[in-house]
Amino acid sequence: MAQNDSLSEFLETAVEAAKRAGEIIREGFYKTKHVEHKGLVDLVTETDKACEDLIFNHLKQQHPSHKFIGEETTAAYGITELTDEPTWIVDPLDGTTNFVHGFPFVCISIGLTIGKVPKVGVVYNPIMNELFTGVHGKGAFLNGKPIKVSSQSELVKSLLATEAGTKRDKSTVDATTNRINSLLFKVRSLRMTGSCALNLCGIACGRIELFYETGFGGPWDVAGGAVIVKEAGGIVYDPSGEDFDITSQRIAASNPLLKEAFVEALQQSE
Amino acid sequence: MAQNDSLSEFLETAVEAAKRAGEIIREGFYKTKHVEHKGLVDLVTETDKACEDLIFNHLKQQHPSHKFIGEETTAAYGITELTDEPTWIVDPLDGTTNFVHGFPFVCISIGLTIGKVPKVGVVYNPIMNELFTGVHGKGAFLNGKPIKVSSQSELVKSLLATEAGTKRDKSTVDATTNRINSLLFKVRSLRMTGSCALNLCGIACGRIELFYETGFGGPWDVAGGAVIVKEAGGIVYDPSGEDFDITSQRIAASNPLLKEAFVEALQQSE
Repeated sequence: MAQNDSLSEFLETAVEAAKRAGEIIREGFYKTKHVEHKGLVDLVTETDKACEDLIFNHLKQQHPSHKFIGEETTAAYGITELTDEPTWIVDPLDGTTNFVHGFPFVCISIGLTIGKVPKVGVVYNPIMNELFTGVHGKGAFLNGKPIKVSSQSELVKSLLATEAGTKRDKSTVDATTNRINSLLFKVRSLRMTGSCALNLCGIACGRIELFYETGFGGPWDVAGGAVIVKEAGGIVYDPSGEDFDITSQRIAASNPLLKEAFVEALQQSE
Repeated sequence: MAQNDSLSEFLETAVEAAKRAGEIIREGFYKTKHVEHKGLVDLVTETDKACEDLIFNHLKQQHPSHKFIGEETTAAYGITELTDEPTWIVDPLDGTTNFVHGFPFVCISIGLTIGKVPKVGVVYNPIMNELFTGVHGKGAFLNGKPIKVSSQSELVKSLLATEAGTKRDKSTVDATTNRINSLLFKVRSLRMTGSCALNLCGIACGRIELFYETGFGGPWDVAGGAVIVKEAGGIVYDPSGEDFDITSQRIAASNPLLKEAFVEALQQSE
């Protein structure tokens, strides 16, 4: 109980940080159409950096003993090892390509791990004004209303999300499209939104039933969403069916009813 | 000028009809999670039918001499031949799968053709509250603000949208994923939203640069969006590069700068 009280407090801090960063993203989002290419690259970098600084400063002020892993910091200083200490894992701007193009699936993703397990998750889309939150043992919410995963049990009636990723070597692209080819015969249809964190939230609120992605950027893409999925009654796992490893850049998510069939379909698609 | 005055009046009627139908869709959208499978099929059919009836009655009352082609009517009575007469072409609920799953890309699409050419277009997403409009010679708008297509001229920096469609025979699925495979080497990334009309509007407001789809339902999927794309400075064409034929169930859209390279990439992907 005492731990959950702290977790609720941690959530509150994270929500505040996400909302403030959301203002920066919102401002930049509507500017991208009006700047030249060189200016655009700067705008993205500056937005990303400004959001991460804001979030880290806010969290550090409230919780000075906690550790931090962020996409921007990692890009600059290399990967920070994940320990058992309370660690905030932050993607200040998930869906960078969407941000550049003005496609409204962009978000801030904030997760807190304790003992390497995500315990608090906040994913905030400031364009569509959707705030997804989850706290270990306390449920998942969209703008304060409880959410739960889809109750679907049949693959053929399930909506699948995945991403084309950013790698464009032949073997990666072939593997991606072969997998999609195989899965299209088994599911209802396919969506690609361009945001890993928002795909996880899509699972959590039942908009989609199935999600997998491999080769994404790092733990910051999934740390927030993983808690939200679990607290909404879903599960996250390795696409092989093994346990989810937050450092592996591999994730699958669904409700528990679909896991076995989904893993089988993923294995057959390799 | 006289014709454009009439077109503005036609637009007003169409916007009113779309907004009223939007209320029905919004109501159904938030219900789908709470009904059983059998009830769900009924809910979709009823929503579709209620929206089409509402839209047709509204348009007929204002413009009794105009003709009408609608997805639901066509499903019931077979295809109505498109003539040179002013003809309203309506998809009362584009993105049916999204509607069922609660994925927020659903819309009403209304187009008016005169001499078989789309002249007025309204695409309304009542969940994200986005109203796209276009009138021949008068520009395109999102919630009343002028929109224009992306100014991008390079494929490799362009965001592509397409759909997996609904056919699941091997040759269709293979063609779909082979095409995606080929295109992924040439464009920045891929989005799939599940709504043809909203993909066209995505082109119109510059969120995406490239869109193609073949084998979609019928002219109701594209009649509204085609006007909006053109009025935003874009072009619609057959994926082969030939002229767009509204009855062909084939469409590509982009800004004029990208057409040649996109058509070439599409040809190489066959």
